[in-house]
Amino acid sequence: MSSSFGKLFRISTWGESHGGGVGVVIDGCPPNIKISASDIQVDLDRRKPGQSEIVTPRDEADQCEILSGVFEGKTLGTPIAILVRNKDARPEAYSEMKDKFRPSHADYTYQAKYGIRNWQGGGRASARETIGRVAAAAVAKKILHSHFASNLEIIAWVKSVRDIVAKVDPETVAFDTVESNIVRTGDPQAVDKMIELIKIMRSEGNSVGGVVECVVRQMPVGLGEPVFDKLEADLGKAMLSLPACKGFEVGSGFAGTRMTGSEHNDPYYMDKDRVRTRGNRSGGIQGGISNGENLVFRLAFKPTATIMTAQDTVTTDHENTELTGRGRHDPCVLPRAVPMVEAMAALVLCDHALRHRAQNG
Amino acid sequence: MSSSFGKLFRISTWGESHGGGVGVVIDGCPPNIKISASDIQVDLDRRKPGQSEIVTPRDEADQCEILSGVFEGKTLGTPIAILVRNKDARPEAYSEMKDKFRPSHADYTYQAKYGIRNWQGGGRASARETIGRVAAAAVAKKILHSHFASNLEIIAWVKSVRDIVAKVDPETVAFDTVESNIVRTGDPQAVDKMIELIKIMRSEGNSVGGVVECVVRQMPVGLGEPVFDKLEADLGKAMLSLPACKGFEVGSGFAGTRMTGSEHNDPYYMDKDRVRTRGNRSGGIQGGISNGENLVFRLAFKPTATIMTAQDTVTTDHENTELTGRGRHDPCVLPRAVPMVEAMAALVLCDHALRHRAQNG
Amino acid sequence: MSSSFGKLFRISTWGESHGGGVGVVIDGCPPNIKISASDIQVDLDRRKPGQSEIVTPRDEADQCEILSGVFEGKTLGTPIAILVRNKDARPEAYSEMKDKFRPSHADYTYQAKYGIRNWQGGGRASARETIGRVAAAAVAKKILHSHFASNLEIIAWVKSVRDIVAKVDPETVAFDTVESNIVRTGDPQAVDKMIELIKIMRSEGNSVGGVVECVVRQMPVGLGEPVFDKLEADLGKAMLSLPACKGFEVGSGFAGTRMTGSEHNDPYYMDKDRVRTRGNRSGGIQGGISNGENLVFRLAFKPTATIMTAQDTVTTDHENTELTGRGRHDPCVLPRAVPMVEAMAALVLCDHALRHRAQNG
Amino acid sequence: MSSSFGKLFRISTWGESHGGGVGVVIDGCPPNIKISASDIQVDLDRRKPGQSEIVTPRDEADQCEILSGVFEGKTLGTPIAILVRNKDARPEAYSEMKDKFRPSHADYTYQAKYGIRNWQGGGRASARETIGRVAAAAVAKKILHSHFASNLEIIAWVKSVRDIVAKVDPETVAFDTVESNIVRTGDPQAVDKMIELIKIMRSEGNSVGGVVECVVRQMPVGLGEPVFDKLEADLGKAMLSLPACKGFEVGSGFAGTRMTGSEHNDPYYMDKDRVRTRGNRSGGIQGGISNGENLVFRLAFKPTATIMTAQDTVTTDHENTELTGRGRHDPCVLPRAVPMVEAMAALVLCDHALRHRAQNG
Repeated sequence: MSSSFGKLFRISTWGESHGGGVGVVIDGCPPNIKISASDIQVDLDRRKPGQSEIVTPRDEADQCEILSGVFEGKTLGTPIAILVRNKDARPEAYSEMKDKFRPSHADYTYQAKYGIRNWQGGGRASARETIGRVAAAAVAKKILHSHFASNLEIIAWVKSVRDIVAKVDPETVAFDTVESNIVRTGDPQAVDKMIELIKIMRSEGNSVGGVVECVVRQMPVGLGEPVFDKLEADLGKAMLSLPACKGFEVGSGFAGTRMTGSEHNDPYYMDKDRVRTRGNRSGGIQGGISNGENLVFRLAFKPTATIMTAQDTVTTDHENTELTGRGRHDPCVLPRAVPMVEAMAALVLCDHALRHRAQNG
Repeated sequence: MSSSFGKLFRISTWGESHGGGVGVVIDGCPPNIKISASDIQVDLDRRKPGQSEIVTPRDEADQCEILSGVFEGKTLGTPIAILVRNKDARPEAYSEMKDKFRPSHADYTYQAKYGIRNWQGGGRASARETIGRVAAAAVAKKILHSHFASNLEIIAWVKSVRDIVAKVDPETVAFDTVESNIVRTGDPQAVDKMIELIKIMRSEGNSVGGVVECVVRQMPVGLGEPVFDKLEADLGKAMLSLPACKGFEVGSGFAGTRMTGSEHNDPYYMDKDRVRTRGNRSGGIQGGISNGENLVFRLAFKPTATIMTAQDTVTTDHENTELTGRGRHDPCVLPRAVPMVEAMAALVLCDHALRHRAQNG
Repeated sequence: MSSSFGKLFRISTWGESHGGGVGVVIDGCPPNIKISASDIQVDLDRRKPGQSEIVTPRDEADQCEILSGVFEGKTLGTPIAILVRNKDARPEAYSEMKDKFRPSHADYTYQAKYGIRNWQGGGRASARETIGRVAAAAVAKKILHSHFASNLEIIAWVKSVRDIVAKVDPETVAFDTVESNIVRTGDPQAVDKMIELIKIMRSEGNSVGGVVECVVRQMPVGLGEPVFDKLEADLGKAMLSLPACKGFEVGSGFAGTRMTGSEHNDPYYMDKDRVRTRGNRSGGIQGGISNGENLVFRLAFKPTATIMTAQDTVTTDHENTELTGRGRHDPCVLPRAVPMVEAMAALVLCDHALRHRAQNG
Repeated sequence: MSSSFGKLFRISTWGESHGGGVGVVIDGCPPNIKISASDIQVDLDRRKPGQSEIVTPRDEADQCEILSGVFEGKTLGTPIAILVRNKDARPEAYSEMKDKFRPSHADYTYQAKYGIRNWQGGGRASARETIGRVAAAAVAKKILHSHFASNLEIIAWVKSVRDIVAKVDPETVAFDTVESNIVRTGDPQAVDKMIELIKIMRSEGNSVGGVVECVVRQMPVGLGEPVFDKLEADLGKAMLSLPACKGFEVGSGFAGTRMTGSEHNDPYYMDKDRVRTRGNRSGGIQGGISNGENLVFRLAFKPTATIMTAQDTVTTDHENTELTGRGRHDPCVLPRAVPMVEAMAALVLCDHALRHRAQNG
């Protein structure tokens, strides 16, 4: 079990879906950063359940409490502990899953690895685990803005739901556009179609996947540490650690494999005093280090595993059986994944900004 | 700079393209594993330059020397240092790059981050850096086979070059089939077309990218450590740290985003005493932990950045200019990337096998 | 700030003396270990304030709550979060310290390092911080007993207070003997003298230091990882991280420097099937690895910095001034340091037991 | 096995006494630091064998080669690999130790832990292992001087050999005084007596221990990271990882336990603009963080385990037997330990300087 992430801005998350709560401890935060519970709450509200008609109706306010590391409104440089209590737990909805493994969920593998699992609500494999990430990222963004890149923008959006693809320009998409619709896409034309599809899926007891795209604008030059902690490698790990994420690509990604070098390369030119590239197939990273262009990357999210129709499965006693999902679930994880993706990006960038400062001053 | 990888089977690679050599120190290797320089050489020979007419002609034997950690043919449990000297360095071929940044290469970002770079042959950003990875992975495979999974197979192949796509079944593809052709694809029908395309690209001074696919068969159940060190997250990081890699997906990957939950889920069934799944959209990982099915994942490699045609760029003094590539380069990195991908898979699996043993006995 | 300790059994502590509380997150705990809040409470009660007339009268029950990682009485293998609320905080007692640095306390250095500090009760530098360590160690001991050494005993005691030296035989001293007196020494003859000295010091507004000695009996052979994570090195670090600790020695320690090799060496002999040593100048560790003999080590604790008499100091505005201590403090940290020392030993041994299992099976 | 040390300035040492050589890889070195092999050689020469008549006569030039990470005389920010070949190995001198364990050496514990050991010359437990530490520390000192504290001085000396105690004032002792005598003490009056004692010990086939003291002058304020990576904790770990070290104390150390708070506390006063203390019982560290006063600490080194007289021991087959030492050994490790102690101090301080810069700018 490894629930810590980051080298210098290091977070340790904890908590199960059903239990005392969830939270995070942040170690290595610079001192004298202004932060309050309400700063954090803004981001938690964007990921919380029950926020719209297309996400899980579990009723959680997800109110956070800062237990340590902040004094008179500023960080002390000591560990920041943040706690969110679980309120609306309904373990009875999971009683059947005590003995049966949900296909393509984590039930079987946790049982096989640990010989025990909290079968109530998915336990540690629940998306509630990401609360700690999102809370920590609110602090990370404060650090990035106050110490490293005051205008840095991290914006993610739903790029596609199943085969409905949004048209969004990473150079110009606005945060408010994305937040103005419950599916969190950046293309107003796609909103209704996506919502409709998700509702249909839910009504059928089915689920659906899609792609989230993310841009980071006003990027500092020089973040990323070859050869193993290249920026794309740490971003990739961060994103692939999110529930339901099955793929990650940066810049041209898989489409870039169909290009030649002369088509793919981003020529340099001087833009006043700044080295810039024409085109951004690199996605803002070259040799594992940010080049100051926009970071652009995409994540593949599979359809939610828990569906409300009968599926073949096996019991914990290794008998063949059938299972029909119950409980409250997102028919599509993408609208709530958007703030999680931004959070992981912020955590990676903050950690790398501190690491860069350590080595290169 | 972070040139260490792994938590318990921890490697530290070092070395530049032009300089004293390249190598690796392995810390945390279990004792009493039989290993010799020739065991390692087999894998180094698969990645070395000059091995065929479609790769860089740089003439390096890449002979390795084990400097420590092995006694009378067995590992001591102490650090294993492995050294490969650079022989065929030609710094003069890079003299123009001393002052000009190759587009989409690491020249500019290294200079911007560190304020200095070894411009000879790409320095640390050279693919020579992967020698240490491949050497360490030879040891990792020994450990996996002797302690954790005697029949485990790690096989990668070239899935596509530009738009030429090989038909390969991960369940059955044989290592010998892949190794029987210089492009290292698993589809005999695709070999000639791929080779021809690469030759054309080289003759035009251009380059080309593609996709590598990898399977791990006879996988142990239970590897991977949620929530951050999920198996797909650590594999993704490992692969995205390889030169030129721009994307990673596991199982259904990006294609899976166009499926519904009922289409995507892998139902469980009992195969004698063993829990198995019908279908493998999960790619062998659920909840971040291996389920015993085949690991299947794919990597996107962009076309080689160094091409032999004139491109716009800037100088280290920030003047616009032009640059035409020189030196010896792979017109397509994929044939030599295949052993690198297998190596990174072996390193991740060995580390996770040790981690799993630590926590779960 | 680095508030994490351990490589595989990794704890992250958090919390200040005055604030929401203190606690710990344990990552990497093996699954299926029986543990309850009351198991932990036993050890917390041994370190809590107000337990006797010779320690600080701060009134804290230090009741712990397990927030995650335990299900139906057993560990899940997921992070265990433990919370203790602060109850009896009296910030007003520290108002003068807001502007004046207590000599030989952490006030000045925290302010100089971070540019900010929680001046209420010592903030993070308070001994309340050790609650998380002691709670985590209760879990560590469970693991050691259930998986590695069922009879392992960790016993610490007060070896000296100022110049009153207890006569205690590490081979035979009993836990109950130590716990039977409020000063926690292992020598019944020394109890009254030590208590009397501490009371005199307190009545004078002064404080006093001393030595804690610790033995670990029924030690497994093979724990410790040369060359940097030698068992004495990790134990030394653990102990020197405790508040007020200024020295650490193992086995013969500083006294051993006055011996010759022939006097100091511990000859081996066979005790039935077991390799043993005559004498134990090595303190149970040779070459950084435990040899199965009793671990024996000692710690030097300086007198408590906060005293109730006037001392020269400076203000946060860098003016010379005087300060007379206030608040509730231990006139001698040693009675409460005893369970902290045992806790740090348990944390180091548990981590090394898991590490040893990882590498050596 | 854990042969890596440091969090940001991270070294990985490797090598056995008899084998291909010994060396180190340094990861995380800041770029643009001037360094050459001859800079490193100066320190290696101070620790090399055969340097005087009171140390082991093994004939090793210990010439180092920088294999990577340095370009045109400056660090690149990439890993620096340094290699020293073993030349004067004489495995035949150790043939008896193949089957018999030297009392109080690492022979038995390595065999018990790993089930295998390189019995030639002590293998990894040889003091040759420290070559990598000393080489890396030469780089660390360059960084400290160029980036953090241009006048910082790290000076260690032999404080005592057995019962001969040198009178040395840490405030004023000069490096040249220490280096002017082969025993490396700072008290000219003690030189002859110490040398004579060591010669007597050697002539008797015996050995002797002693204390090394170290001062760091011109210390920056603010280094050290509570609560676990306190400066004294990381220094203690560093020192206790040195061969034969059995104790560590900082400032008043064990003697301080016999003082009261009013005697022990170091009052603050303003020295122009600088906060200083009268007295330095704290040894330059308060609350785990440097306060700008001189760091002062001491290490206990036991007498060398390998002696030339008959001792009881057991065989690898677990039979009682006798062993008389052979081979070339230091009758007293202290003269050569002095540069090792300075090296470990430099490594800890450099790492903490980078860590401090990361968090606090």
